[in-house]
Amino acid sequence: MMNKVLIVIGSKNDYNIMKDTTKIFDNFGIKYDIEVASAHRTPERVRTLAITAVGKDYDVIIAAASMSAHLAGVISGYTTLPVIGVPIDCPPLNGLDSLLSTVQMPSGVPVATVSIGKAGAKNSALLAIRIMAVYNLELKVKLENFTKQNEKEIEKITLIKEK
Amino acid sequence: MMNKVLIVIGSKNDYNIMKDTTKIFDNFGIKYDIEVASAHRTPERVRTLAITAVGKDYDVIIAAASMSAHLAGVISGYTTLPVIGVPIDCPPLNGLDSLLSTVQMPSGVPVATVSIGKAGAKNSALLAIRIMAVYNLELKVKLENFTKQNEKEIEKITLIKEK
Amino acid sequence: MMNKVLIVIGSKNDYNIMKDTTKIFDNFGIKYDIEVASAHRTPERVRTLAITAVGKDYDVIIAAASMSAHLAGVISGYTTLPVIGVPIDCPPLNGLDSLLSTVQMPSGVPVATVSIGKAGAKNSALLAIRIMAVYNLELKVKLENFTKQNEKEIEKITLIKEK
Amino acid sequence: MMNKVLIVIGSKNDYNIMKDTTKIFDNFGIKYDIEVASAHRTPERVRTLAITAVGKDYDVIIAAASMSAHLAGVISGYTTLPVIGVPIDCPPLNGLDSLLSTVQMPSGVPVATVSIGKAGAKNSALLAIRIMAVYNLELKVKLENFTKQNEKEIEKITLIKEK
Amino acid sequence: MMNKVLIVIGSKNDYNIMKDTTKIFDNFGIKYDIEVASAHRTPERVRTLAITAVGKDYDVIIAAASMSAHLAGVISGYTTLPVIGVPIDCPPLNGLDSLLSTVQMPSGVPVATVSIGKAGAKNSALLAIRIMAVYNLELKVKLENFTKQNEKEIEKITLIKEK
Amino acid sequence: MMNKVLIVIGSKNDYNIMKDTTKIFDNFGIKYDIEVASAHRTPERVRTLAITAVGKDYDVIIAAASMSAHLAGVISGYTTLPVIGVPIDCPPLNGLDSLLSTVQMPSGVPVATVSIGKAGAKNSALLAIRIMAVYNLELKVKLENFTKQNEKEIEKITLIKEK
Amino acid sequence: MMNKVLIVIGSKNDYNIMKDTTKIFDNFGIKYDIEVASAHRTPERVRTLAITAVGKDYDVIIAAASMSAHLAGVISGYTTLPVIGVPIDCPPLNGLDSLLSTVQMPSGVPVATVSIGKAGAKNSALLAIRIMAVYNLELKVKLENFTKQNEKEIEKITLIKEK
Amino acid sequence: MMNKVLIVIGSKNDYNIMKDTTKIFDNFGIKYDIEVASAHRTPERVRTLAITAVGKDYDVIIAAASMSAHLAGVISGYTTLPVIGVPIDCPPLNGLDSLLSTVQMPSGVPVATVSIGKAGAKNSALLAIRIMAVYNLELKVKLENFTKQNEKEIEKITLIKEK
Repeated sequence: MMNKVLIVIGSKNDYNIMKDTTKIFDNFGIKYDIEVASAHRTPERVRTLAITAVGKDYDVIIAAASMSAHLAGVISGYTTLPVIGVPIDCPPLNGLDSLLSTVQMPSGVPVATVSIGKAGAKNSALLAIRIMAVYNLELKVKLENFTKQNEKEIEKITLIKEK
Repeated sequence: MMNKVLIVIGSKNDYNIMKDTTKIFDNFGIKYDIEVASAHRTPERVRTLAITAVGKDYDVIIAAASMSAHLAGVISGYTTLPVIGVPIDCPPLNGLDSLLSTVQMPSGVPVATVSIGKAGAKNSALLAIRIMAVYNLELKVKLENFTKQNEKEIEKITLIKEK
Repeated sequence: MMNKVLIVIGSKNDYNIMKDTTKIFDNFGIKYDIEVASAHRTPERVRTLAITAVGKDYDVIIAAASMSAHLAGVISGYTTLPVIGVPIDCPPLNGLDSLLSTVQMPSGVPVATVSIGKAGAKNSALLAIRIMAVYNLELKVKLENFTKQNEKEIEKITLIKEK
Repeated sequence: MMNKVLIVIGSKNDYNIMKDTTKIFDNFGIKYDIEVASAHRTPERVRTLAITAVGKDYDVIIAAASMSAHLAGVISGYTTLPVIGVPIDCPPLNGLDSLLSTVQMPSGVPVATVSIGKAGAKNSALLAIRIMAVYNLELKVKLENFTKQNEKEIEKITLIKEK
Repeated sequence: MMNKVLIVIGSKNDYNIMKDTTKIFDNFGIKYDIEVASAHRTPERVRTLAITAVGKDYDVIIAAASMSAHLAGVISGYTTLPVIGVPIDCPPLNGLDSLLSTVQMPSGVPVATVSIGKAGAKNSALLAIRIMAVYNLELKVKLENFTKQNEKEIEKITLIKEK
Repeated sequence: MMNKVLIVIGSKNDYNIMKDTTKIFDNFGIKYDIEVASAHRTPERVRTLAITAVGKDYDVIIAAASMSAHLAGVISGYTTLPVIGVPIDCPPLNGLDSLLSTVQMPSGVPVATVSIGKAGAKNSALLAIRIMAVYNLELKVKLENFTKQNEKEIEKITLIKEK
Repeated sequence: MMNKVLIVIGSKNDYNIMKDTTKIFDNFGIKYDIEVASAHRTPERVRTLAITAVGKDYDVIIAAASMSAHLAGVISGYTTLPVIGVPIDCPPLNGLDSLLSTVQMPSGVPVATVSIGKAGAKNSALLAIRIMAVYNLELKVKLENFTKQNEKEIEKITLIKEK
Repeated sequence: MMNKVLIVIGSKNDYNIMKDTTKIFDNFGIKYDIEVASAHRTPERVRTLAITAVGKDYDVIIAAASMSAHLAGVISGYTTLPVIGVPIDCPPLNGLDSLLSTVQMPSGVPVATVSIGKAGAKNSALLAIRIMAVYNLELKVKLENFTKQNEKEIEKITLIKEK
């Protein structure tokens, strides 16, 4: 089965942060599309993307936005696919606004919120892969190898010798 | 000219707070409709309300919601009418979430945000009236009388005598 | 009808942020005056500006200030015109102070608060135009064209091709 | 395929909030186990639950905890299953602590964080179902019916007539 | 010399908290007047009170208000008397709004801000007395006796014996 | 009468911010001493400074500190002079810590807290002068001239002409 | 060796929370003294307690206070014993003020800060015991038994059966 | 007796801040080991370090981490040694996340939390030394000399002469 992910970013600037998401998908050989669409400035476009996502064989949607970050929540209201929200930080409130806007969804419409900013960009890819790996054994194996590889690299660091 | 306001509330519970809004409109003889619609749970309904608002002769839209309060922002994206956002407070974050979700709109799509909760409910009505009074002399006069009346009542309070 | 807006800024420095407001008014051919006046340092000037605003044919007042941002609230107390508050951010609290000072008005005296800083500067102009467009068909048409133009520009961005 | 979910709660008290999660799973006929285990007080138990989850045919893990809410993050470090974190609110900080502890994961180890408290309890179930429905058509249909049913119930509310 | 203090409260409700202020003045035999006046709802009254305070032989002004608490700042802008600000707490933000509105004054117009709520109400009286005692030896002696008396009462508490 | 102020700063670095305080005192011809003393690192020195302040003819004490800013509170506990607290901002919490540490004094021991950082440094001088001017007519006159001068300079700014 | 702990509480009310601390010490047979002393209201008493603590054979000092919670920091400045700070929560800021006042100590004077309120009261006792157990084998054994006992009790909970 | 400390840092970058910790230990001639281990990315390594710490004759463990800083809490769950937590600050939330994740431990598992970032790095060393000095007279003497030396250096600063 071919896994495919839809990444929606609220503005062109958000791509600077979200390219870390795409690198991980490239590593894993997972297909994705990136669309620039704003819940506020291009609401019809967001709606169309959300409604048609199932028909286009997307398994997961990732939505990244800053400030009053409504993108993930609005998309989640239009679909039953799992929606991952990445709160993007920008001045002056540094992402406290986007975090609360993304995560504090009312009951009925879930958004899977990850960390603010760069860490969240990477984790959104890894969470999408975890989701897609639930029923995809090959992806599962790749994911476990990737994780073990990371652990080994961290453990190789023998920064400071015992005195 | 007949001024009319559309009030949209995110859930039935929000009416407890927003009935103060309607009392002020009743005082001023201003017509309004209240609709329950959620940016998350009934997105198509919100969109329809927002898109058709101009055609129904509404002058102003008031949107009240709690938590990830996307209602006012989403409506503002679908209309060029002035949209007033009332952040409703509820536990556990007591409205800090709804305030930031409502007010921190990206440039291009304004929301006129008022105070959190009960004070905001009243002020949303008064702000709508100020807006409609800009070109409605009769309403302007009513508003100025209402304001002077309030001032007088506060000044009548002679709570504690000089010692 | 000639729409005119009064912009009051709390200090000269705030102009760096608020010139984005004036650019939008220039685009729309809307007249405005900018005054520097502080609710704390020149209270009589603020009072005079607020009291005389109606007589000078202003339709809307925009007030921008930082820190204990009382400017919009104080002006709103002296007038029945719609007052838009722009919370300006500056260190150390980055606008959390100006946001809460501007938006948390007690019931009776509304301030239409927009986003903190640059986004708010632009949105204050667009909100003023939405207000003035309620009864000004020509302005309404301009505003809808402006909005559609923006949407198109965002939609033209085809940042990253489907893989 | 039989979908099964592991729910881990940090203390017995958290069950009051998380029983809303189980009700939704009961509605959908989804099997689940609830375990009480604390990342701090019974770390070996948490580790064993996390490591053995794949072997026990769980598809998704939900972890709910309050204060320094490390439960979801620690479990996520031991597994490659998708882990949903529910930040539970309790005095004195009302969930700001559990939200930040749950959501601000470093890059490499994602937690799918949902809203604080009761809304999050429900949304954790719905997010788990969305994840499991990606490759389970029968569950997908149930989920879409459930969502439409909810929308209809909200739209039936005709709270206040047009005046 | 007869010391006299002007207490201004933003609304009648604030008196519940500020009566602790008056009790301390009564203890010390200091004269005071309490006025209800709002920087927003009765701005002319606030201005008149502030401008005429010197002529009425007040030495210190205490201003207590909640939410967007502009009262102390606005009064300070109209006078060169020392102005003490008491941020009153009320839901939903519990005084974070009134604290920041009161204390974050721009340079040039100082407000002597004390603790939020009840503790601040008492401390505003004690701070006013400290100020008036600078050049009033009799009051200074009373204040030092009062302070020593308090210390003794606290030290008398021998709550729990050594085990 | 010779007015004299004691300025205590928690660390040498705080002088960068507090030299604005001394400039204002120099302008007004007010004598002051600056001492570096920390409530934590040199507690005996702080105690001695606080206890002996009255005997050295200080009228007001200004205390500036960052982080867990206990300096003003501790000094206030040792004296009955008015104590002005200046919360100094430094990373990572940018003064929220020093503000709350300085202002949230328990009832009985007041600290006159001014704005965080540079604005507070200036305002601490102006507040001290307001306090000392209560019974010093000459200083009062200087202060009123200084204030009027400031107002005039602000009003001279005719930044942008009416269009 | 006989371990002994000094517990200092900022006001009598804090005992309601800190009696959980004493229960744990009673369980472990550890001697302690409780003193009521305030860094602000009885500074000399705090200083004497802190300076004489070593001579009285205390191994650890626990200090609990609310609001501008300076108690632990001030004591730490007077002693080289380990000082544990318990931030006590009270309205309106619910312990955010006491947490930041207690934990954000400048470099040079450490305070071992534990959780806010009740959890912190218990943890302050357990942390003191961990410290005293470093060189006390008997106490170490008791502590490990206590910990294992707790784990077993939590693991005995078999709240909900697998379905 | 030879005192030895285990320092665990969540990522290699944290060493930039924690080298101030090691400098103080070097000054005091205290042995230490630094290990890079993450509660999330290398959980088995953290567990092994924590479980074997007693057997390796460590007296105290210091754990430093950023964001969802679970490191100190997880280690504390696996040991009965005193665990000192250093919340490391990084953008976007500047350590508020790591502070709350580290300090808000549930009752039963204490973490001795020190200041965020650089000040905390130094204070973690000084707190460890205070703990180890409780039963080590030689270390106690060194610590008191170090403290007095610091006080003297601060008191030598005679920054600004009395005017």
